[in-house]
Amino acid sequence: MSLIVQKYGGTSVGSPERIRNVARRIAKFREKGHDIVVVVSAMSGETNRLIALAREIQQQPDPRELDVMVSTGEQVTIALLSMALKEIGIKAKSYTGAQVRVLTDSAFTKARIVSIDEGKMRADLDSGHVVVVAGFQGVDNDGNITTLGRGGSDTTGVALAAALKADECQIYTDVDGVYTTDPRIEPRARKLKSVTFEEMLEMASLGSKVLQIRSVEFAGKYKVKLRVLSSFEEEGEGTLITFEEEGQMEQPIISGIAFNRDEAKITVRGVPDKPGIAYQILGPVADANIEVDMIIQNIGEGGATDFSFTVHKNDFEKALSILKGIQPHLEAKDVMGDQSIAKVSVVGVGMRSHVGVASQMFRTLAEEGINIQMISTSEIKISVVIDEKYLELAVRVLHKAFQLESQV
Amino acid sequence: MSLIVQKYGGTSVGSPERIRNVARRIAKFREKGHDIVVVVSAMSGETNRLIALAREIQQQPDPRELDVMVSTGEQVTIALLSMALKEIGIKAKSYTGAQVRVLTDSAFTKARIVSIDEGKMRADLDSGHVVVVAGFQGVDNDGNITTLGRGGSDTTGVALAAALKADECQIYTDVDGVYTTDPRIEPRARKLKSVTFEEMLEMASLGSKVLQIRSVEFAGKYKVKLRVLSSFEEEGEGTLITFEEEGQMEQPIISGIAFNRDEAKITVRGVPDKPGIAYQILGPVADANIEVDMIIQNIGEGGATDFSFTVHKNDFEKALSILKGIQPHLEAKDVMGDQSIAKVSVVGVGMRSHVGVASQMFRTLAEEGINIQMISTSEIKISVVIDEKYLELAVRVLHKAFQLESQV
Repeated sequence: MSLIVQKYGGTSVGSPERIRNVARRIAKFREKGHDIVVVVSAMSGETNRLIALAREIQQQPDPRELDVMVSTGEQVTIALLSMALKEIGIKAKSYTGAQVRVLTDSAFTKARIVSIDEGKMRADLDSGHVVVVAGFQGVDNDGNITTLGRGGSDTTGVALAAALKADECQIYTDVDGVYTTDPRIEPRARKLKSVTFEEMLEMASLGSKVLQIRSVEFAGKYKVKLRVLSSFEEEGEGTLITFEEEGQMEQPIISGIAFNRDEAKITVRGVPDKPGIAYQILGPVADANIEVDMIIQNIGEGGATDFSFTVHKNDFEKALSILKGIQPHLEAKDVMGDQSIAKVSVVGVGMRSHVGVASQMFRTLAEEGINIQMISTSEIKISVVIDEKYLELAVRVLHKAFQLESQV
Repeated sequence: MSLIVQKYGGTSVGSPERIRNVARRIAKFREKGHDIVVVVSAMSGETNRLIALAREIQQQPDPRELDVMVSTGEQVTIALLSMALKEIGIKAKSYTGAQVRVLTDSAFTKARIVSIDEGKMRADLDSGHVVVVAGFQGVDNDGNITTLGRGGSDTTGVALAAALKADECQIYTDVDGVYTTDPRIEPRARKLKSVTFEEMLEMASLGSKVLQIRSVEFAGKYKVKLRVLSSFEEEGEGTLITFEEEGQMEQPIISGIAFNRDEAKITVRGVPDKPGIAYQILGPVADANIEVDMIIQNIGEGGATDFSFTVHKNDFEKALSILKGIQPHLEAKDVMGDQSIAKVSVVGVGMRSHVGVASQMFRTLAEEGINIQMISTSEIKISVVIDEKYLELAVRVLHKAFQLESQV
């Protein structure tokens, strides 16, 4: 008998019929004697409906009130799933983020989990209940409702698994595992049986939508055994996210090609090349709670330098207007933005011990005439920013160049 | 400067445009220097949408989970109204029932308010905020979400006014006050400038939909000054609910004709006429949390008696099946139900000092050939149950007989 945390995303609970399917799946795990805690997202489309409604009132909805609103999406799902479980004779009890006390900081719309009180859940599990928890949401110290930002339900799932010391955290999605790249772009993409946390972390941060990056960080930190599965297939092992030490002796050099269309680039041109300039530029952006991804500073001419970075497209207008506002203070020649970019990355722990991955990547792109705008590297990934229109082409040629295609 | 609690129903906040209208109305009160606490219902149609969704999963939705679900309706409205207020430069903060700690008992779907913690609201008012509270909902001692049942937002409004010792509680509806009867049935119905609490209580309990009965009880108990107004008219004083001592020296004999189509009749025939039989019949009904309205026991023949009572139509099937279940135990000949009934009542505090109201009522109905099935009286009202098909006719002839028509 194990304790399993299962997380079902918006598509998996997108209709009453699908919610009944999820209930039946949970019932099978109960029959095997497992204790189950379920985390659910809002029904697909619901969060967007609520945000659209809010925007009819305020173009930039007040973050505190927006969280009050969008958190209702998951609240509806937990009630429906609990009803569906009871309907087939399984004891169940629902909890909102506030009720189970997922304590977060007060950064509305992008809060971070501080702690989880597992007392109520433990008591319910002991009395034979399936515990159904609203993902994506929490409560701050003053009792305000918060949400965790994009993909936050995955984070809730992993955080609950960590708090409860669960045997496994299963993330059910509309895909049946982690692929070498997005099969919609490269049909010959191959499903991976396992992938290391570090690779998954890079892939998630690079835009692979299977798991939210913070959930992977959390899982790594608390050593939560994480598995990605399809909620639409009855069988299948999915992809297990492993700790490196458990992995195969010989890692493949490259595990996958990740990409991200959600970023935009901002360039501050001709700022004085003096100590503290990076902070002067990025400080106000960070103060506005905007996350910055890639950062590049070029050596400039005549004591001036160019400074580029990428942000999520949602934050683009805000970041741009912040920088335009302080442009005179920065003594910058120009502040420019570009939303038609994409990021493509090759990821693999095996890369560490193999030289030549970067050169092969750059050569492959050059052969197709794709210009590289920015480069960023880590121990296990190389990312490039290119013109958005070349994205599909870049993914396919890199997938082939690194021999990731399935052997069908 | 006064503290005013305003309650806006579902129609008043039924669209983003109407929510903006409500925000503008609140702004006018703020300009006059008043402190405002606002209670809102779910947008019209939303509660029914949620209940229908729940019924797709469970024909009889689990009450605890149903409350988790339907409480999201008001949660969306408080966020939208707070945004609308901020959009026009007014400081505002929203609270769910749980957040403002509207503590209730644990009778899901029909909970009763135990206490309200006014601390947070007071602090927000002191710092210049409009406080926006979700009506209809609360939280029990274990942190479970509860709802107050039909029309519960009115009760929330009055309870908040009582807790805050507000100067006035204004209930905004789609009608502009309390009428002598429903103008849709009798176009010559007249708007009352004021009505006593006792009359209002009777009218509400008799089905006048302007205010929920529990809100009137609450208002009477805590001496909350209550006013019914239209949310669609800019001007107008509405109808003030007065304490009798404030009323005119000479009360009109009859203030209005109320009616109710929402009840159904259950008759237990031929039970032994012995002590305790009423309890044996109504005990199990009360245990199932079903409210009973009129109760009539006829003197029977041969040691047996007939026992009739009315319940809300929503509870009819449940009450009927409970009694059929215990019919052998009751030694009853038959248990019968009738859903095609209606209740019509004449209400007025002046009735106390005037004889002959009852006889005039019965004569008026008899002249139209309307048969009376049940009669129930109090100090200030006389109610009769008749066949539902005669309802409109009965209301019109009584309205005329008691000279309630407007002098247009």
